[in-house]
Amino acid sequence: MARERNSTQNKKNPVIRVALKERSYDVSYLPGIGALKNAINDARGKEFALIDANVDRLHGKEFRRNLKGVHFIRIASGEKSKSFLSLERIANELVKNGATRSSRLIAIGGGVVGDLTGFLAGVFMRGIPFLQIPTTLLAMVDSSVGGKTAVNLKAGKNLVGVFHQPQHVFVIPGLLSTLPERELKCGLSESVKTALIADAGLVRFLEDYSFKKARTDLDFLQELSAACIAIKADIVSKDEREENIRAYLNFGHTLGHAIEARLKYKGILHGLAVAVGQRFAALVSHRLGYLEAHDELRIHDLLKKYELPATLRDAFGRTKVAGSELIRYMRADKKNKDGHIRFVLLDEPGVARLPENVSEQELLASLKEFQSVS
Amino acid sequence: MARERNSTQNKKNPVIRVALKERSYDVSYLPGIGALKNAINDARGKEFALIDANVDRLHGKEFRRNLKGVHFIRIASGEKSKSFLSLERIANELVKNGATRSSRLIAIGGGVVGDLTGFLAGVFMRGIPFLQIPTTLLAMVDSSVGGKTAVNLKAGKNLVGVFHQPQHVFVIPGLLSTLPERELKCGLSESVKTALIADAGLVRFLEDYSFKKARTDLDFLQELSAACIAIKADIVSKDEREENIRAYLNFGHTLGHAIEARLKYKGILHGLAVAVGQRFAALVSHRLGYLEAHDELRIHDLLKKYELPATLRDAFGRTKVAGSELIRYMRADKKNKDGHIRFVLLDEPGVARLPENVSEQELLASLKEFQSVS
Repeated sequence: MARERNSTQNKKNPVIRVALKERSYDVSYLPGIGALKNAINDARGKEFALIDANVDRLHGKEFRRNLKGVHFIRIASGEKSKSFLSLERIANELVKNGATRSSRLIAIGGGVVGDLTGFLAGVFMRGIPFLQIPTTLLAMVDSSVGGKTAVNLKAGKNLVGVFHQPQHVFVIPGLLSTLPERELKCGLSESVKTALIADAGLVRFLEDYSFKKARTDLDFLQELSAACIAIKADIVSKDEREENIRAYLNFGHTLGHAIEARLKYKGILHGLAVAVGQRFAALVSHRLGYLEAHDELRIHDLLKKYELPATLRDAFGRTKVAGSELIRYMRADKKNKDGHIRFVLLDEPGVARLPENVSEQELLASLKEFQSVS
Repeated sequence: MARERNSTQNKKNPVIRVALKERSYDVSYLPGIGALKNAINDARGKEFALIDANVDRLHGKEFRRNLKGVHFIRIASGEKSKSFLSLERIANELVKNGATRSSRLIAIGGGVVGDLTGFLAGVFMRGIPFLQIPTTLLAMVDSSVGGKTAVNLKAGKNLVGVFHQPQHVFVIPGLLSTLPERELKCGLSESVKTALIADAGLVRFLEDYSFKKARTDLDFLQELSAACIAIKADIVSKDEREENIRAYLNFGHTLGHAIEARLKYKGILHGLAVAVGQRFAALVSHRLGYLEAHDELRIHDLLKKYELPATLRDAFGRTKVAGSELIRYMRADKKNKDGHIRFVLLDEPGVARLPENVSEQELLASLKEFQSVS
């Protein structure tokens, strides 16, 4: 590991700054749950932790032991918890248990708990602070940093939310050793994405490893996640509200979201759908003359190295899904403008292009070509 | 009407600026609903109007005729509509009818519709713009300006919301001629409040009138509302997030909220409960040595001039409500800090003091004295 990503980082317990003026905060690595006791000692009022039910089963006792005086609320695992219904239920529970404007929330879990807690903190009494303790690789490298919060509507995912930055993010890499493999893969997919849009060196770093080596190597996962967080922190600092470069982070998400929607958000995990979406975005990038053929293949091989799905067959199995149907789902994406379908594309691995409209004709042809990729 | 409140105001159709840097906006008076056609012509995407059911019955046709292409959604009158349930229902309806990040919402109604629409605009796709067209005096002088939005929880009113400033507020004084008298009184109560906290001249202006004269005098109501909006705009510009002087606007609300809660939000309208609360705050202000006895009486007489409730008997009728019970409700107020009950008090009519803790002993004695005020 010859990479020296950020000279301000302490190799052992890195600290990454998200620079957003008065809303700036740190992402701090901690050696274990026990370190929370001293890390979180600045409460101004009563604190409430929203903890994912699976995490609670595995680590609940240790969290409770180290976060004395914090009222714990257990959140059922899964997207269903990102609803107005849970938001309302938990808000009422907060009031009943003495929450005030001086209270603080703590999210302990993956993206679902983080998004829900962040949104609740953003609207409870018109805004109270919150902390993120991501417990999945996906939440560490992606959702816990940047202040995007949301719940789902029947009409679509993440359609209601606020920008509300956490006060601090605490990353405990040791938690990854209890993370199921498919969850780890989701985080690796978003890590690949982060490398592809912004850092050719990180792409090579990833190419030197593989899923088999990565899954038990906490040092690797710490270095990888810290590198991804530093990239995301940099992007968010420059464009908090996604008016330009923050859109890079949607690489792979246009087809990814369509695949998720087509499978009714049950057949595939978000990170895995995004892996297929990245492979497709690479194909489109090549067809439009931006990405070289050998780089398109490198991306394919990289996804496969991390045992990630990369083809329509990987996503849908033997079910043939027509390109026109996928296009219909892509059209519903909230990132579109004026009815056009927009893609983040690559010039090369590590260099992204701002989203651009891709015609439906080109998309149909690209999807046809993608059908034969295996 | 010798008062010249704001030299930048055009007497006929005043325009009041709410100065909040990049979130600044105008409150513009319009001569009628017909003037909306030219006033609202800058939509960037599909627009949606949330309209109060009563207003829709009275003026719906004219609004629709002048807001062509806008999709209208009818909102049931009453606090029940300020719920997560309506928020979710309407959000789904927006998506189904083609709302995007470029869409804009228009609130047409009183405080309920304004608060609900503002909150929805604040969270839909993480924030889209909205316009306020207040149709009650209360909404004109208070809730439509300042960007406080919220819905209610079972555990309490306005406990969940965001700060989200409108893009423009349009006031059509003619709408007040169809406003029920008790609704008009609520607006007059908040107007009295605005005068008492900030403008001795406006207090005298109010003293020269009465409810009987005011209720049919649209010129008076326009001048009064414009004066109140200018005061609120000034306060909000200096303290958007209620860190200091914006708290003045809560004058009368500590006991007011307790009365509403004691009557389960069914027995009394908000503005009327606040009238009783103002009378009580004047009594406390005098007891603590801030307000002269004759000024306390002036405030009593002013409320009575506008046929507003000013005593516990006015609020509760023959039901005797113990002071200790009211204190219990006051303790639940979200504006309290560290368990203390806080009051905005007056030095004189037109001059408020920042909120201060009032001991329960003093409160009990004050409430006892208040029982005998008639």
